[in-house]
Amino acid sequence: MRRLMERLNRQLVDDAGMSLAEYEVLVQLSESPNRRLRMSELADLVVNSRSRLTHTVNRLEERGFVAREECPDDRRGILCVLRDEGFAALVAAAPGHVEAVRAAVFDPLDAEDVKALGVTMRKLRTLLRES
Amino acid sequence: MRRLMERLNRQLVDDAGMSLAEYEVLVQLSESPNRRLRMSELADLVVNSRSRLTHTVNRLEERGFVAREECPDDRRGILCVLRDEGFAALVAAAPGHVEAVRAAVFDPLDAEDVKALGVTMRKLRTLLRES
Repeated sequence: MRRLMERLNRQLVDDAGMSLAEYEVLVQLSESPNRRLRMSELADLVVNSRSRLTHTVNRLEERGFVAREECPDDRRGILCVLRDEGFAALVAAAPGHVEAVRAAVFDPLDAEDVKALGVTMRKLRTLLRES
Repeated sequence: MRRLMERLNRQLVDDAGMSLAEYEVLVQLSESPNRRLRMSELADLVVNSRSRLTHTVNRLEERGFVAREECPDDRRGILCVLRDEGFAALVAAAPGHVEAVRAAVFDPLDAEDVKALGVTMRKLRTLLRES
């Protein structure tokens, strides 16, 4: 799995100038209502520690891809907001990433493998979330 | 997968006072001839960047678990050597780690899932190593 993550990270860095961690943050924000999430929700979705997420969001903010905002209904909460520049960068990076996932994960597997892998991953994820 | 890695790391930190990355370095050294490996081989086996591996080995060295040695047949090469203290720490940590893997990965799966997962992971690994 680590080798796969490394491969997918390398493709994004080489072809889109962003890390896999940065890409995943942009994906999560793009799929959220009003393209914004609390930092705590974002950390949970990308399964990252707060300190590592802070670092990733700092880099995205420096590039103008995201912005931080105070939470209107909770002064201690900080929202991370996807800016149009970040959405455009995600749209530009996505085809290459999807192709890399296809080549590394789906090409070597047949339909039965993919189905079984889906069943297995759902079982593992369910237990990890519950316990 | 990241949630699983996080779980396994947490168990080792809590129960054995070492990270999953440190544990994996000790495992690789313990399984190598004369309990030693070149740093470059070690980086490849644990699928880590050289800079991250250097950090992990530094922490293991501070605790007296490993030592660095010059490579006898290549002056530029550095060997990482497992010390008896490191082997003892690995032996002490292993049962808890094995139990955590069993609980998180094997308990939720039936025999057919495990077999299919093995086939799938071998296919993915083969392609990642070749390309």
